[in-house]
Amino acid sequence: MVNLKVGLCQINVVDDKDKNIENAISMIKEACKRDVDLAILPEMFNCPYENSKFIEYAEEKDDSKTLRAIGKTAKEEDVYILAGSIPEKINDRIYNSSYFFDNTGNIIGNHKKMHLFDIDVKGQISFKESDTLSPGDSFNIVNTPFGKIGLGICYDIRFVELARILTLEGADILIYPGAFNLTTGPAHWETLFKSRALDNQVYTIGVAPALNKDANYNSFGHSLVASPWGDIISECGYEEELKIVDIDLDKIETVREEIPVLKNRRRDLYEINKRK
Amino acid sequence: MVNLKVGLCQINVVDDKDKNIENAISMIKEACKRDVDLAILPEMFNCPYENSKFIEYAEEKDDSKTLRAIGKTAKEEDVYILAGSIPEKINDRIYNSSYFFDNTGNIIGNHKKMHLFDIDVKGQISFKESDTLSPGDSFNIVNTPFGKIGLGICYDIRFVELARILTLEGADILIYPGAFNLTTGPAHWETLFKSRALDNQVYTIGVAPALNKDANYNSFGHSLVASPWGDIISECGYEEELKIVDIDLDKIETVREEIPVLKNRRRDLYEINKRK
Repeated sequence: MVNLKVGLCQINVVDDKDKNIENAISMIKEACKRDVDLAILPEMFNCPYENSKFIEYAEEKDDSKTLRAIGKTAKEEDVYILAGSIPEKINDRIYNSSYFFDNTGNIIGNHKKMHLFDIDVKGQISFKESDTLSPGDSFNIVNTPFGKIGLGICYDIRFVELARILTLEGADILIYPGAFNLTTGPAHWETLFKSRALDNQVYTIGVAPALNKDANYNSFGHSLVASPWGDIISECGYEEELKIVDIDLDKIETVREEIPVLKNRRRDLYEINKRK
Repeated sequence: MVNLKVGLCQINVVDDKDKNIENAISMIKEACKRDVDLAILPEMFNCPYENSKFIEYAEEKDDSKTLRAIGKTAKEEDVYILAGSIPEKINDRIYNSSYFFDNTGNIIGNHKKMHLFDIDVKGQISFKESDTLSPGDSFNIVNTPFGKIGLGICYDIRFVELARILTLEGADILIYPGAFNLTTGPAHWETLFKSRALDNQVYTIGVAPALNKDANYNSFGHSLVASPWGDIISECGYEEELKIVDIDLDKIETVREEIPVLKNRRRDLYEINKRK
């Protein structure tokens, strides 16, 4: 039984905020013609993935043309939207921040990237998010009519603790808007989505910008959905694409009965806890 | 720089303890001709993977012809041996238990399977280890001249907590003798070894019995080594095979500098602890 239809909006992000918003809305509307319940936008869907652009493009929540436009679309199209992420300014800090809208345009969730991406693979890719961004400090689960959705962003998926805690708090689906690059993407993107899904017997969803070869940072694309059995059930390539995916939420219980990983955890021997 | 040469001894396990021991020793000797530092035997290398056989084949540690023979081989061949696992009897209980021998034949480590394998994939595979076996309650790391080795057995690899705790306690390599089957093997074996390696930026090694089509339980084989970058660097097929693999331990530090996952863990926000 199909319970939820999602639209992975793998848009091509360019150096023009208005065009990015327009492109996002256009793809959300296309997804709605195909009856999705939830449309998902990529990490930094309104802004090129560059530290200098994060500063230039950052918006305050209550004065954000991006969030206004997405909220209006959610209401008009009667659709839930996870607005991947935008650079959000709060006082003198900037966060990599995603907003979840219900189908009336109200914000029902927010996640600020918890683990900042500071990598330096020799001769291939270096990026230090912490030069401009501040990390978020909270665990975020959104209650929706189609289950509890746990939120992360990109690099957050590498951390087993976050996924486990969200799962133990009841998340059925973990969504990580992301933008892996042409080094870490081919090497790790699929494995990470499969393994977080398999470890926790939940669905995982990743939505990335399309590969823009003109950009300074080249996104790997490959937006995807992995099942609680650890299969990739649908995946984009590098190009701009809308992917519609049917998600059978009953599969979670089936897999958990077949291989009772969560039940078999040795809670007498180890524990994993939030500290705040 | 190569630091460690391991021999994955993917032997064919039959319903004859003496033959299994003989076969194991023969393959260890073959590995030693090829200069391995460490030979690794599969889960239940001396016993068919069946609950009734666990009872029939079980030995007490101090009266175990299996362990005596393996220890003698370690000394004679001047090699470290992880004796995958055997059914071990302690009082009225049976454990799925692996022993680590140094190159003088002394036992320097032991792990008893912590998570028992009780699965029921409809129409495909059912197995309930807890019908006969008792679980181990301890975390086990062995100090060797080639680094700290964390121990698990088979189903233990599905639990992120065990691998993380062993890593945080300094393990460089996690070894899980295992015996996935023809359902869970193709679906999950590679993903789990890749993900535990990638999550923790350690080497992971799995050693399984060869596929014996005459057995009641069909092992997937596919003994393998995954690197801290999450690549599978060597892998067997289904058949009986000795695989010699060079392991470059310096790679661990390189990967941890490139993508500092362990350093970037948000220890201010979550914690993972042993309870004993």
